[in-house]
Amino acid sequence: MHHQLRTAAEQGVALGAWIFLREPLLAEAASKAGYDYVCVDLQHGLVGFEDLSAHLQAIALGSAAPVVRVPWNEPWMIGRALDAGALGVIVPMVNTAEEAARAVAACRYAPQGERSIGPIGAMTRHQGYFRAANTDVMCIVMIETEQAVANIDEILAVPGIDAVYIGPADLSLTLGLAPMSDQSDQRFHDALGTVVAACERHGVIPGVHANPALAPARREVGFRMITVGFDHAPAVAAFASDLQQARG
Amino acid sequence: MHHQLRTAAEQGVALGAWIFLREPLLAEAASKAGYDYVCVDLQHGLVGFEDLSAHLQAIALGSAAPVVRVPWNEPWMIGRALDAGALGVIVPMVNTAEEAARAVAACRYAPQGERSIGPIGAMTRHQGYFRAANTDVMCIVMIETEQAVANIDEILAVPGIDAVYIGPADLSLTLGLAPMSDQSDQRFHDALGTVVAACERHGVIPGVHANPALAPARREVGFRMITVGFDHAPAVAAFASDLQQARG
Amino acid sequence: MHHQLRTAAEQGVALGAWIFLREPLLAEAASKAGYDYVCVDLQHGLVGFEDLSAHLQAIALGSAAPVVRVPWNEPWMIGRALDAGALGVIVPMVNTAEEAARAVAACRYAPQGERSIGPIGAMTRHQGYFRAANTDVMCIVMIETEQAVANIDEILAVPGIDAVYIGPADLSLTLGLAPMSDQSDQRFHDALGTVVAACERHGVIPGVHANPALAPARREVGFRMITVGFDHAPAVAAFASDLQQARG
Amino acid sequence: MHHQLRTAAEQGVALGAWIFLREPLLAEAASKAGYDYVCVDLQHGLVGFEDLSAHLQAIALGSAAPVVRVPWNEPWMIGRALDAGALGVIVPMVNTAEEAARAVAACRYAPQGERSIGPIGAMTRHQGYFRAANTDVMCIVMIETEQAVANIDEILAVPGIDAVYIGPADLSLTLGLAPMSDQSDQRFHDALGTVVAACERHGVIPGVHANPALAPARREVGFRMITVGFDHAPAVAAFASDLQQARG
Amino acid sequence: MHHQLRTAAEQGVALGAWIFLREPLLAEAASKAGYDYVCVDLQHGLVGFEDLSAHLQAIALGSAAPVVRVPWNEPWMIGRALDAGALGVIVPMVNTAEEAARAVAACRYAPQGERSIGPIGAMTRHQGYFRAANTDVMCIVMIETEQAVANIDEILAVPGIDAVYIGPADLSLTLGLAPMSDQSDQRFHDALGTVVAACERHGVIPGVHANPALAPARREVGFRMITVGFDHAPAVAAFASDLQQARG
Amino acid sequence: MHHQLRTAAEQGVALGAWIFLREPLLAEAASKAGYDYVCVDLQHGLVGFEDLSAHLQAIALGSAAPVVRVPWNEPWMIGRALDAGALGVIVPMVNTAEEAARAVAACRYAPQGERSIGPIGAMTRHQGYFRAANTDVMCIVMIETEQAVANIDEILAVPGIDAVYIGPADLSLTLGLAPMSDQSDQRFHDALGTVVAACERHGVIPGVHANPALAPARREVGFRMITVGFDHAPAVAAFASDLQQARG
Repeated sequence: MHHQLRTAAEQGVALGAWIFLREPLLAEAASKAGYDYVCVDLQHGLVGFEDLSAHLQAIALGSAAPVVRVPWNEPWMIGRALDAGALGVIVPMVNTAEEAARAVAACRYAPQGERSIGPIGAMTRHQGYFRAANTDVMCIVMIETEQAVANIDEILAVPGIDAVYIGPADLSLTLGLAPMSDQSDQRFHDALGTVVAACERHGVIPGVHANPALAPARREVGFRMITVGFDHAPAVAAFASDLQQARG
Repeated sequence: MHHQLRTAAEQGVALGAWIFLREPLLAEAASKAGYDYVCVDLQHGLVGFEDLSAHLQAIALGSAAPVVRVPWNEPWMIGRALDAGALGVIVPMVNTAEEAARAVAACRYAPQGERSIGPIGAMTRHQGYFRAANTDVMCIVMIETEQAVANIDEILAVPGIDAVYIGPADLSLTLGLAPMSDQSDQRFHDALGTVVAACERHGVIPGVHANPALAPARREVGFRMITVGFDHAPAVAAFASDLQQARG
Repeated sequence: MHHQLRTAAEQGVALGAWIFLREPLLAEAASKAGYDYVCVDLQHGLVGFEDLSAHLQAIALGSAAPVVRVPWNEPWMIGRALDAGALGVIVPMVNTAEEAARAVAACRYAPQGERSIGPIGAMTRHQGYFRAANTDVMCIVMIETEQAVANIDEILAVPGIDAVYIGPADLSLTLGLAPMSDQSDQRFHDALGTVVAACERHGVIPGVHANPALAPARREVGFRMITVGFDHAPAVAAFASDLQQARG
Repeated sequence: MHHQLRTAAEQGVALGAWIFLREPLLAEAASKAGYDYVCVDLQHGLVGFEDLSAHLQAIALGSAAPVVRVPWNEPWMIGRALDAGALGVIVPMVNTAEEAARAVAACRYAPQGERSIGPIGAMTRHQGYFRAANTDVMCIVMIETEQAVANIDEILAVPGIDAVYIGPADLSLTLGLAPMSDQSDQRFHDALGTVVAACERHGVIPGVHANPALAPARREVGFRMITVGFDHAPAVAAFASDLQQARG
Repeated sequence: MHHQLRTAAEQGVALGAWIFLREPLLAEAASKAGYDYVCVDLQHGLVGFEDLSAHLQAIALGSAAPVVRVPWNEPWMIGRALDAGALGVIVPMVNTAEEAARAVAACRYAPQGERSIGPIGAMTRHQGYFRAANTDVMCIVMIETEQAVANIDEILAVPGIDAVYIGPADLSLTLGLAPMSDQSDQRFHDALGTVVAACERHGVIPGVHANPALAPARREVGFRMITVGFDHAPAVAAFASDLQQARG
Repeated sequence: MHHQLRTAAEQGVALGAWIFLREPLLAEAASKAGYDYVCVDLQHGLVGFEDLSAHLQAIALGSAAPVVRVPWNEPWMIGRALDAGALGVIVPMVNTAEEAARAVAACRYAPQGERSIGPIGAMTRHQGYFRAANTDVMCIVMIETEQAVANIDEILAVPGIDAVYIGPADLSLTLGLAPMSDQSDQRFHDALGTVVAACERHGVIPGVHANPALAPARREVGFRMITVGFDHAPAVAAFASDLQQARG
C-alpha cells in the first residue's frame, strides 16, 4: 500500500495537516493541498468514530496518507480506526515500554500482535490489505510527558514502533511550562533533542506537532514528521482578521 | 427582538460572515468574532435543513443576527428557516416584483402575508416572537441578474422588503463577465449604483456579497450590508499557504 | 394494509400524536401509548426528510398509523414521505380544488394519479404494498384559511380526498384572530362547522389540530380525527413546572 | 473533466449502478467495481441532500462518473446536486419541451442557462470546473410517461439535453401495465423504440433503468446508458437466499 | 468562568435538569427554564460524543452550567466532555479513593492532574479557559454502591473532588432494594445521611438524582445539588395522560 | 421477554444475520427475512453507539432477537448496548474466566452483577424489562484465540454465560492460519470440537460466525447459533457479478 507519510519521512520530511472539525470537505481539501499525511483528531477534535469513515474517504481523494489520532491507548479504538481505513494511528500518552507494546499489539494481526480482523473500510480502499497491513500500517506513539522522555529508549526498543509524535503543549505542562507549541526554556529543547537522538538510534521516525513558522527549526533538529496545517485555528483567525480589515 | 443586522445597517454598515460548512463551531466562532450577522448558506453551502437548527443555536451564542440564505424562493423553505430561528432570510433570484411579493408573503403572518405559524425554534430563542415577527424578521431579496437590476424600482416598491443583497458573481454572468466578486467593467458598477440609488429612494438597505478588500469600496458607494467573512475559502487557502511556508 | 387512523375514524374518532422533535424514541413511545396515528411534522417540526425513515420505523413499533405532514403541496415531498413508509400525508395550505387535485395526484399511482413508483421503505414495512397503496394511503388536505373554508365543497368534491385537517392557528390568523387552537369568536366556530358539515356530505373524515382539553368539544361537533398528543410542549412545560415544584 | 459515463456511451454502452441506501461505503464499492456511472437516487432512495456530499466523495474514489437523480425538476435541486460534485443529473418526469428546457437551464451557467454559481464541492473535486461545467455536466431527462414518448422529438430538440433516461416502471403505469422493468406488451417496446430512434436522430444518448438480465436486450435495441447494479435489492435477496441455503 | 452550579450550591441548593434525548432544542429549553445546571447523560441517555457539542452549545444559550455524565471513569471520556465545553463532569461508579483520584486527574491539567490539552469547544465558549480550568471545572463523582458509601471519607479526602452525586437506583440495587429514586428502607436513608455528613466535613457539595416531589426532603437532609427536571419521562407520561384525557 | 435466539437455539439451531452498515432499512429487512437474531457489529462494522438505537428499533420491526457485538469487553459498552434495547451482547476477546466474569457482571444488575440501571430504550421496547433482564439478556462471549480454547472449561464455569461465539478468522490467526471462516487444518476443527463439547458439558449454547455454505457442517458438529447472513459482502459481490452479467 502506498504510504506517502513513510515515503516522505524516509526521503526527508513528511509534512502533515490536522483535522479537528466535522466537515469532510476540509479533509479532502487538505489531502489535495499536497500534505504527506492528514490526521483526523479523535482525541481533541470534534470528529468521532461515527464520522470517521467519511473523513477517511475524503482524505483518500488526495495523495496524503490517512492517519487517525485515537482518543486513548485502547485496542478497540486503534482497531476501529484501522478498520475504517487509516494507514497510521497516533496513540496518546505512551509513557512506558508496556504502553508502547500495547499500542503495537493493537496495530498488528497475530502473531505480531492481537488486532482482530475485519477491516471493512480498509479492504475497500487498499488493495491487498491483509497481506500488507502488518508491515505498512504505522504505529505512532505520542511522547508528551517528562516520564515518556525519560523512558524513550525503552519505548523505542519495542518492536513495531514506526514513529513517535511529540505533543509539545502537554509536554510543556509536565515541564511546568505554559501549554504552547514552542518554548524558550532549554529543558523543552533538551527533551526534543533527546527524543530525536533516540529515534535515530532506533530507526524510528521522529515526529512533532508544530506550525508553519516552527517547521524549519523542527526540521533542523531532525524531525521528519511535522504537522503544520490545521482546519480550525486559521478559519477562526480569518474571521477576526477579515472583519478587522473590512472595518478598515 | 434585538437585530444586530438592522441596527448596524441603520447606524452605518453591517458586516457579515458566511457559512458554507457543516461545523456549527465555526458558526459560533463567527458570531463571537463580532460580525453583525452570520448567514448560513443553504443554496450553495453544504448545510441543509436538518443541520440548520444546530447552526442557528451556534450563532445565537454570539451577538450576530442569524440569517439564512434559502435555496430558492419557496414559501416552505422560508418558513422552515424562520421557524428554526433565523431573523432574516436571503432569497435567491428575485427578478420581478411578483417574485419579491412571493418572498415577502412567506416571511409575514396574515394579514401581511401567508406564513404558516409554528415557530418552534424561534419562540425558544426570541422572547415575544409572534408579536414582533412581522416587523422584525428581515426579508432580503437577491438581485443577481440584469433583469432584476432593470426591475429594481418595482421590486423595491413591494411593501415588506427590508434589504436587497447583490450576488456579484451571478450578476456578472448575466452581464457576460466572469463570475467574480468584483469587475473592472463599468456596466457592473453601474448596476451596483442603480441598486444602491433605488434602495435609498425606497428606504431599503442595500447589501452585497464581497470580501474584506472590497469592503471600503462597497461602503463608499453606499452599501450598508456587506459580507466579508467566510468559513471555507480562508481555511482552504491556509492549507496551501501553511504548507508552502513550512516547505520554506 | 392495516390503517388504525381510518379504522378508528370510521368507528368513532381517531386520536393522534404529533412529533416535532428529532428523537425517534419519542415517536416510538407515542405509537405505543395507544394513539391511532402519529404524525411527523416536516413543516413546522425539526425533523427533515433525512430523519424521516427512522421516525417511521419507530412509529411502526406501535399500533399507530404513520402519518407525515409534508412542508408543502409538492409532489416530490408527498412521494418521499410515502416511499419512506407513511400511510397518510397531511398537505398544508390547500385552498382550492386545483390544489386538492394536485395533492391527490401525488398520492396515487397512474391511472388515478401521477405518483412515481419506488416505495423502498413502504414495501419493506407493508405487505402487498403496491396493490393496496392507491386505496389505503390517505390523502389529508389542510384547511387553514378563510379561502379554503369558502371553497370547501369544491375541494371535497375532488375524488381521492380521504380527510381534511384544520389548522386552527393559521385559520385564526386569516380570520384576524390570534393564532390559537381555540377561539371564542363565533366566526371560528362557524368555519369549523362548515367544514364538518361538508365532510359529512362528501364522506370525508373531518380532522383538526387540538389538545386534550379541546377534544370533547371537537368530537361533539363532529370531528373524527383529532390530534391531542405532542412531544415538544409537554416536555417544555414539565421543565418549568418541575423546577417550580422543586423550589417549593 | 473526465466523464466515464459520456466516454463509455460514446464508445458503446455505459453501464451504471444505483444507490438507494445511506451507506457511502456501498457507493465507493460500486464505483470501484468498474461501473461507468454511479447514480445516487434522491427521489426514491433514502439518501437526502445532507448525505449527498459523502456519497459523491465516495463515488469519486472509483472510476465511475458521479450522477444524481434529483427528486423533481426544480432548479434548486439540480443546483445543489451539481454544486456537491455530481457530473450529471437525472431529472424525473420531463414530459414536455418546456420542462426539458427548465432542466437544461438549471444545469448551465448564463448565458446558456440560469444556474447560480457557487460549486463548493465540485470545484474541490474537478479541476478547471467553471470553464468546463457548461459542456461537461450532463443533463439527463427522464422519459417515463406516454406523454413524454409522444413529445419525444420536441423534448430532444431542446439544446443541451445530453441523454434521456427511461423509467420503465412509471412508463408501464401510464400504459396501464404493472410497474416492472420489462413487459411483454408490445406498446412498451414500441415506446422504447420510439425513444431510441429519436435519440439517434438528435444525437442524444438513450438510457434506461434495467437489470443485468435485461442488459443485452436493451443494448441490442440501441440503449447506450443502462443501469444494471443496485445496492438494495441484491442485499435483501441475499438475506432471504442465504437463510434458505443455511436451513438446507 | 461563571458557574451557576457552584454558585447556587454555595448559596443554598442547585437544581438541575437531565438530558437523555438527542434533541438539542430540549437542552436549550431546559437551560432557559432556569435550572442551575443541565446534565447531558452519555451513560444511560441516547446522546453520544458525536452529538455532545450540539447539546453543549444549546445549554450555553441559557444560564445553566453545562454538565456531562460520562459513560465511565475513563480519562479520554472526561477529556472529550470537557474539551467540548462541559464545566463539570459526573463520573459513574466511583467506589474507592483510587477511582476518585483517577477521575480528578482526568479533570486537571498538570501538575494537578493529567488532562491532555486541546479544549477546542471550551475555549470558544469560555473566556480565559486555560487559566481557570483547573479551579473552575467541577469533578463530580457518583456514589452509587454500598462500597462507595463505606469508603466515603477516603473518597472525599482526595483533593479535587468538588461534589458527589448519589445514584439512588443503583445504590438501592446494591442494598438489595428495588431500583427507585426513593425508599422507605432506613438503610437507604442512612446511606444518604452518611454521604451528606461526610461532604460537610470535607467541604464537598452533596448531590443526588431525584425528582420534584423528592426535592424538599433531599434539601432538608442537606443535599445542595439536586436533579429534578427530565426530558424523557415527562414527555412519555404526557403522551399517556393526554390520550386518557382526550378519551374523556 | 420473547427471545427468538434462545428459543431457536434450544429447539435446534438459531440462524443469524450480521449488520456492518449504517442503513437501518437493511437491519429491518434482515429481521423480517426470518433470521432468529440480527447482530449489529460495533467492533468491525461502521455502526457506532450514536447509530445503534435506530438499528435496534429497525430489528424490532421483525421477529429476530436484537444482538450487539460491542467493540470490547468494557462494562460501559455492554451497558449502552443493553440500555438501547439489545437482548444479547457478543463480547470480543474473552480469553480467561476473569474476562468472562467481567462480561457477565456488565450484563446483570446487582446482586448478580454490576450493571448500572437506566434502560431507556429497552424499557420502551420490552415490557416488564427490569424484572426479566437478569435472566433474559444473553451474555455471549467470543472464543477467538488458542488461549480461549485452552481455558474453555474455566470460562464456561463462570455463572451467567449464556452462549459462546467463535470468531473463526481471529482464531485462525492465533493458530498460524490465514484469517478465514473455514480451514482444512485439523487443529482448527479440533478447537471447534473442544468448544462445542465444553458447551454441552456446561449447558451453554455454542455459536459460530459462518456463512450459508458452512452452516450444515457447523450444525452437524453441534453448533446451535450460526451467523449466515450479511449485509456487506453480498451487496459488494452483487455489484461485481451484476456488472459482469450485464457485460455478457
